[in-house]
Amino acid sequence: MLQNGNYEAIFSRIPIYIEYLKTYEEEYISATIIANSLGLGEVQVRKDLAKISFGGKPKIGYEVKSLLDDLSSYMGFDKLTKAVIVGMGRLGEALFHYLGFDRINLKIVAAFDVCDKYNSLDEFKSICEKHNVKIGIITVPEESAQATADLMVSSGIKAIWNFSSSSLKVPNNILVKNENMANSLSVLIRLMNNL
Amino acid sequence: MLQNGNYEAIFSRIPIYIEYLKTYEEEYISATIIANSLGLGEVQVRKDLAKISFGGKPKIGYEVKSLLDDLSSYMGFDKLTKAVIVGMGRLGEALFHYLGFDRINLKIVAAFDVCDKYNSLDEFKSICEKHNVKIGIITVPEESAQATADLMVSSGIKAIWNFSSSSLKVPNNILVKNENMANSLSVLIRLMNNL
Repeated sequence: MLQNGNYEAIFSRIPIYIEYLKTYEEEYISATIIANSLGLGEVQVRKDLAKISFGGKPKIGYEVKSLLDDLSSYMGFDKLTKAVIVGMGRLGEALFHYLGFDRINLKIVAAFDVCDKYNSLDEFKSICEKHNVKIGIITVPEESAQATADLMVSSGIKAIWNFSSSSLKVPNNILVKNENMANSLSVLIRLMNNL
Repeated sequence: MLQNGNYEAIFSRIPIYIEYLKTYEEEYISATIIANSLGLGEVQVRKDLAKISFGGKPKIGYEVKSLLDDLSSYMGFDKLTKAVIVGMGRLGEALFHYLGFDRINLKIVAAFDVCDKYNSLDEFKSICEKHNVKIGIITVPEESAQATADLMVSSGIKAIWNFSSSSLKVPNNILVKNENMANSLSVLIRLMNNL
């Protein structure tokens, strides 16, 4: 399970900065403008940017283009990352066709399912090795999730994005990010009930 | 935009505790066991539980059943929450049929789309008012997202789960949780590149 709490927080903010900067039309930008536009704390934005980009100038701010380059390469968006997906039910289909992965330079190179329409799991290892795939997305039912994770690990995958509700057992050097739709929504329900 | 950083963190952990407790077969449980089983810090789990449940006893721990009740009612899972969804593309379909919302007592009472197969947006306000719907899920393309949010706000919806990449403008008393699949995955890519 991911336990990089602090890193995860900053890694979550940077894609938001990047999206915002892409729409910004001036040549220079300050941390203050970014913070105010995104409703974030100015100190936090300033610290995040200072950690990643050395181009900031007092009173002028950051050149937008080079700040974008610095943030993108910090996140690894300057290199193509390859993923595969296993489990082509409705959620698998939705992720497989999701257009937003382009902008983080992620490509889902193959989709697997027991159904004939997709690649067979027999080919999983050879396809992953051929394409040097590092990320595996699991959208299978809970009962098949652990076997899928095992197959991913033995095929050289380094990070698993797990949409099943199964809590996966993997070696220590493998990252797992659990994405639970109900848990995510439940945060919103709780905050709403707080109002 | 949600800025309840600290609350969001604890609200995200509780559903994970709940899921784990449901599988736990003894009568009593300690914060230590929960922490170790979930790979979380013991101090954090202890603090979270102490904030919500007063049933913990030294050396014995919490009675599993009453801890579950306390955590569930803290999250609002003891009451039915009603949601609607607008935009029945692949992602909308996947969420509409997602089975995991049952366990947080959330029911998607209606699905809307410009396509005839679903409810028409003309009926949106009346359906939301009739069912007293509080949560709106947006899975429309970016260009329709703001108009959808406006319709939700004027129909009495209090919290929006936004899967579009549009950054929505809403009144201060309306909660918005942006769920961006690419940003979520990019955290995993970044952590993987860190290894």
